[in-house]
Amino acid sequence: MAVQAAESSTTPAANVSLGPAAALSCRECGERFPLGPIFACSSCFGPLEVAYDLPSGDPEELRRRIEAGPASIWRYAPLLPVPADVADRPNLNPGFTKLVKADNLARELGITGALHVKDDSGNPTHSFKDRVVAIAVEAARAFGFTTLSCSSTGNLAGAVGAAAARAGFRSCVFIPHDLEAGKVVMAAVYGGDLVGIEGTYDDVNRFCSELIGDPLGEGWGFVNVNLRPYYGEGSKTLAYEICEQLGWEVPDQIVIPIASGSQLTKIDKGLKELIRLGLVADKPYKIFGAQAEGCSPVSRAFKDGHDVVRPVKPDTIAKSLAIGNPADGPYVLDIARRTGGAVEDVTDEQIVDAIKLLARTEGIFAETAGGVTVGVTKKLIETGQLDPALTTVVLNTGDGLKTLDAVAPTTGPSATIRPTLDSFREAGLA
Amino acid sequence: MAVQAAESSTTPAANVSLGPAAALSCRECGERFPLGPIFACSSCFGPLEVAYDLPSGDPEELRRRIEAGPASIWRYAPLLPVPADVADRPNLNPGFTKLVKADNLARELGITGALHVKDDSGNPTHSFKDRVVAIAVEAARAFGFTTLSCSSTGNLAGAVGAAAARAGFRSCVFIPHDLEAGKVVMAAVYGGDLVGIEGTYDDVNRFCSELIGDPLGEGWGFVNVNLRPYYGEGSKTLAYEICEQLGWEVPDQIVIPIASGSQLTKIDKGLKELIRLGLVADKPYKIFGAQAEGCSPVSRAFKDGHDVVRPVKPDTIAKSLAIGNPADGPYVLDIARRTGGAVEDVTDEQIVDAIKLLARTEGIFAETAGGVTVGVTKKLIETGQLDPALTTVVLNTGDGLKTLDAVAPTTGPSATIRPTLDSFREAGLA
Repeated sequence: MAVQAAESSTTPAANVSLGPAAALSCRECGERFPLGPIFACSSCFGPLEVAYDLPSGDPEELRRRIEAGPASIWRYAPLLPVPADVADRPNLNPGFTKLVKADNLARELGITGALHVKDDSGNPTHSFKDRVVAIAVEAARAFGFTTLSCSSTGNLAGAVGAAAARAGFRSCVFIPHDLEAGKVVMAAVYGGDLVGIEGTYDDVNRFCSELIGDPLGEGWGFVNVNLRPYYGEGSKTLAYEICEQLGWEVPDQIVIPIASGSQLTKIDKGLKELIRLGLVADKPYKIFGAQAEGCSPVSRAFKDGHDVVRPVKPDTIAKSLAIGNPADGPYVLDIARRTGGAVEDVTDEQIVDAIKLLARTEGIFAETAGGVTVGVTKKLIETGQLDPALTTVVLNTGDGLKTLDAVAPTTGPSATIRPTLDSFREAGLA
Repeated sequence: MAVQAAESSTTPAANVSLGPAAALSCRECGERFPLGPIFACSSCFGPLEVAYDLPSGDPEELRRRIEAGPASIWRYAPLLPVPADVADRPNLNPGFTKLVKADNLARELGITGALHVKDDSGNPTHSFKDRVVAIAVEAARAFGFTTLSCSSTGNLAGAVGAAAARAGFRSCVFIPHDLEAGKVVMAAVYGGDLVGIEGTYDDVNRFCSELIGDPLGEGWGFVNVNLRPYYGEGSKTLAYEICEQLGWEVPDQIVIPIASGSQLTKIDKGLKELIRLGLVADKPYKIFGAQAEGCSPVSRAFKDGHDVVRPVKPDTIAKSLAIGNPADGPYVLDIARRTGGAVEDVTDEQIVDAIKLLARTEGIFAETAGGVTVGVTKKLIETGQLDPALTTVVLNTGDGLKTLDAVAPTTGPSATIRPTLDSFREAGLA
């Protein structure tokens, strides 16, 4: 079996041209498979990821080529599973979001080194999901899919709907039927089909898995299931951008939110690629994972010194991180330990405080996931796990407008007055 | 009086260094005043605007200098009332948002020329207000103000709160006390003071005018009142970016929303500057204004052939455009007529349809103001006022996440099913 697969990996599926992507390879046993809409190793059921023939040659020239590219993730096309002409295809051109030097926040946190916030709320649908979906769209084109799909409770639904609309795909997104009205609007406004499923999010996922195996799902690309190996690679661009925006330097410390854990593992993969290619100098870096206490299975395992992650039932306001059984949890533990980082968690109250702290210091209104990373950064400093004298990058992966409910109960007017100077004077705000 | 003012214009206020800004000049009588926090001509009460000593010399070199600048409005610092080192000061770095080639939308509208959407939802707080506020912040610094303020019912409150937080100003924003909860959160989250006023938006504005004249308001910069001449200049950057993003070419037709009308007049000003400086070739362009039928005083005057704009009481879902007595209305009429454009309006139903049309064709979820411009573009084509064979740019000035209520009643799931393939098959969506 292993031999067969190794052989087949030299003959990729016909007509598939995804740039430097050479094959899929199993993260557990290393077996290779031709590029295709598959996501699990047929030998060991391990997750598949994209293996590359990365560009060789002068790093200086590659750097120049990247710098001359478009202001989107497509400047890194030579390092992604996408065709070389990807920037000319209709897509949302996500990425190359701001890396904000956060001096005010640094002061409040007692950070004396350089602190930066990588602010992915600047993406087209205002979350990092635009990055991963954009890569999945190119895979879907390559494999001849005509419908883009996913299960989602939030950011992903909007990202898929928008990307499909612009790229000329039909979309059909599955959500739990009792999702909040605002999120339903965001998911439905792009005109694709939106299907409410009577059941929990787990039921939605189970249904999607069934659909992929059924003739009904023919021609359907589920961005986070059968296109997952490609989709996940989109998160590498966060590593590329951070380093380029720091002047082609790897930061000393990065704080990354953990949902499935995929984003963290792909950022680590991206950093290693940059080092291997000579685009940045090789140096040690520490990766920190951030969870909400109400869904902290990886943090728990890290603190307990375990290698396996025990699933939990999520109960937190950080809904975009509420994955109780994170698929990449063990890999996250590995990376945090190997790099000398850590995994930490904060309470819902600390998340809200951190959202407000970031807003009032830097004018960035983050989603709850951004409250988690900022809150965890604060805790890591207080507990001596993060060195305040080094260069630190904190990720904000989404937009506060999408999680207004989190801050609404504690955010309101300082005063209500009559429209007179006397009334204003009495309020004591002048 | 006029002579005195002319003399005083040669001696600007001490310590005021706002780059190429040379003076304020009255748009009505032309009288000049030194740079300062004033907004009305002391002779004729006409509105003041910034007069420049614009760079002379080789346009090719200026183009190169701009292109090498930051990916924000600060690339145009040599054409704005800001100090040369503005990009190094803490601010939100707004602008240089995407100009999206909208081929799908063009097909639906029967546009055969190039159609582009200038998508300002990509700004830091997701509306074009970040542009104008960023310029006002620099004026506030120059004049030694310590508090940033405004009256607002929406986008501006968030833009001021965020900009003040990052730039190190105190902020105090005034809103009607009965604003929707979501908008209150967006205005308050940046940690400045937010004051609800018991009264209408008109009462809020009247109160702010009183405060400016009172010792209580000492050191306060109201971005859209005593800093208005500077603030307004921020909209010129839309013209600069559009032309640069079109390869330093003026588009044939631009469709711009009208609230006060300031944005439209400043875009015209920006285009004329680019032509005068030789940064773009001189060519005719048509400017179209877009209003909601429920607040269409300028459209009404345009159609009736009037020079004056009769105030109306706004009643439309396009709340960010709901200014019943638009200060720059007469100038808008002038520009639309001079350039061979027009002013048109659409109903609330057409606004909602247009929001959805833009979302399902290009994956852009616009605020109601974006529904107004897209809807008006459609109507202008249908009525033969806009040439579908020419290059057209349509502005989207805000984000759909801020006006979810507009589309919520008509945007929902295609179906709700049980989590089984049979149930999905019955729904007829496969």
